[in-house]
Amino acid sequence: MSALVLGHKNPDTDSIISAIAAADLMSKRGIPSTAVAQGKPTPETEFVLNKFGLKAPEVVSSVAGKKVVLVDYSDLAQAPADLKDAEIIAVIDHHKLGDITTSSPLLMWVWPVGCTGTVIKHMYDYYGIEIPKNIAGGLLCAILSDTVIFKSPTTTEDDKKAVDGLMKIAGVKDYKELGMDMFKVKSAVDGVPAKDLVFRDYKDFDMNGKKVGIGQLEVIDIKMLDKCKPDLVAEIAKAKADGRHSVFLLLTDIMQEGSEMLICSDDPSVVEKAFGVKGDKSVWLPRVMSRKKDVVPKFEAAFK
Amino acid sequence: MSALVLGHKNPDTDSIISAIAAADLMSKRGIPSTAVAQGKPTPETEFVLNKFGLKAPEVVSSVAGKKVVLVDYSDLAQAPADLKDAEIIAVIDHHKLGDITTSSPLLMWVWPVGCTGTVIKHMYDYYGIEIPKNIAGGLLCAILSDTVIFKSPTTTEDDKKAVDGLMKIAGVKDYKELGMDMFKVKSAVDGVPAKDLVFRDYKDFDMNGKKVGIGQLEVIDIKMLDKCKPDLVAEIAKAKADGRHSVFLLLTDIMQEGSEMLICSDDPSVVEKAFGVKGDKSVWLPRVMSRKKDVVPKFEAAFK
Repeated sequence: MSALVLGHKNPDTDSIISAIAAADLMSKRGIPSTAVAQGKPTPETEFVLNKFGLKAPEVVSSVAGKKVVLVDYSDLAQAPADLKDAEIIAVIDHHKLGDITTSSPLLMWVWPVGCTGTVIKHMYDYYGIEIPKNIAGGLLCAILSDTVIFKSPTTTEDDKKAVDGLMKIAGVKDYKELGMDMFKVKSAVDGVPAKDLVFRDYKDFDMNGKKVGIGQLEVIDIKMLDKCKPDLVAEIAKAKADGRHSVFLLLTDIMQEGSEMLICSDDPSVVEKAFGVKGDKSVWLPRVMSRKKDVVPKFEAAFK
Repeated sequence: MSALVLGHKNPDTDSIISAIAAADLMSKRGIPSTAVAQGKPTPETEFVLNKFGLKAPEVVSSVAGKKVVLVDYSDLAQAPADLKDAEIIAVIDHHKLGDITTSSPLLMWVWPVGCTGTVIKHMYDYYGIEIPKNIAGGLLCAILSDTVIFKSPTTTEDDKKAVDGLMKIAGVKDYKELGMDMFKVKSAVDGVPAKDLVFRDYKDFDMNGKKVGIGQLEVIDIKMLDKCKPDLVAEIAKAKADGRHSVFLLLTDIMQEGSEMLICSDDPSVVEKAFGVKGDKSVWLPRVMSRKKDVVPKFEAAFK
């Protein structure tokens, strides 16, 4: 029986590509594995899959009775509902340690770096396994996406080293050009329903017993979002009404290097507690680029 | 400020030696670190420390406000009470994933192998850092202790490879002889209070909401324990009365390769559910050598 390798809900490029790469790596290490996903690729991820001739993983909602490898998360809220009935044999991640537990020993590669793809690149090297050219291209894009072409504060030397190695294998000459092409696709919001934009890169967190949703939209120019902002506000209000204490949506301008945060919360004062900036509906947060590094830890402290 | 590297409560040899080794490794990687412990060394660990000229880590009960590296566990029940007020920067382990969470990304090296010492040996190699001779000797003993000189079913090829490499660095010719010398020390029970024997290698688990304690005594010949068995039975009854659903004590005969389990439980039928052997006060479990591999998963299933 093949182990299932899968990323988190609302999969981003890292979550999809890391599943594909980790399935290849695990299989070559003698553990037959198949990449799956908890959702369809975003337009950005589709661009990457097409660019390098990779196939979107099958979408699954159940993993009961399976061996599973988790990539890019360790939170129950981001896992299939029946994860407790699966056997987790490995976790590969670059986030804070979540609330997933196991009943048997397992393999964990968790590094404090910008992207799970970076960890997997180093795993390939560690185990002495060659990275296929198309997977190298995918991993390269995953790192450029997660680190916002190295502009995110989550970027580390390990990420840069990985990109350097992956460019050679994938035959990519200019990573910045590739990254901008990818972010142009990501920035395209015309004709996309507001709900899809809110949930494109969205995660629920348990913060001191309260369910808190944080979405993020990264665009090349925040003005592109002016027209659809009222619809985004309406959508996060709907998401909040669905049993959440707060929903925040980061509108990140990767050229300006900052984020506007749309706020819908039972207690908007958490925003001031977290960031020292007052705002009921929206605040501008300069230099805030990374949900993981700039936003989640501050909210976790504010909710304590 | 130096990071504190610390193992679990009731520290065994792996927990103490891995803290010493990881503190050395982290410091050499540029993160100043100090080994500490949540308790004094057992006689076995003292033998190892003396044999290789290592110093017992200072005993601490608080880690508030510190950066910490956890070795050999990831369960809150095995951590200092104020761990939530510390920042966990790394976890090095070989157990199932426990319920510890973090609010920031971290480094995790978790392998499904016989000993945390094995993981640390491979970390030294990965980071290209030389292992000091005395630490190599300590790690060697930690692996021989945790794997019961390779008799435990938790033993893997990685453990054997690590022992091979560590013997050369430590200048040890015969690992079996070293292992038996160590287990002779461990087996010495004369004059030791029964309570100390019960808690020498003891862990509390949360099993489906019930607090379950499991201790283990490894001896070269189980007959050595005949005289003190009534006292052991009385001690686990006391431990159970202190708010636990069950306390089990494994008396492991490393030559016979099996364990007698002393039982004190609100519901002794869990033993039959777990092992298919009936017994109210005590059962003999052939081939059961490892709490982690042979016992905990079975009880976790039985308590579900």
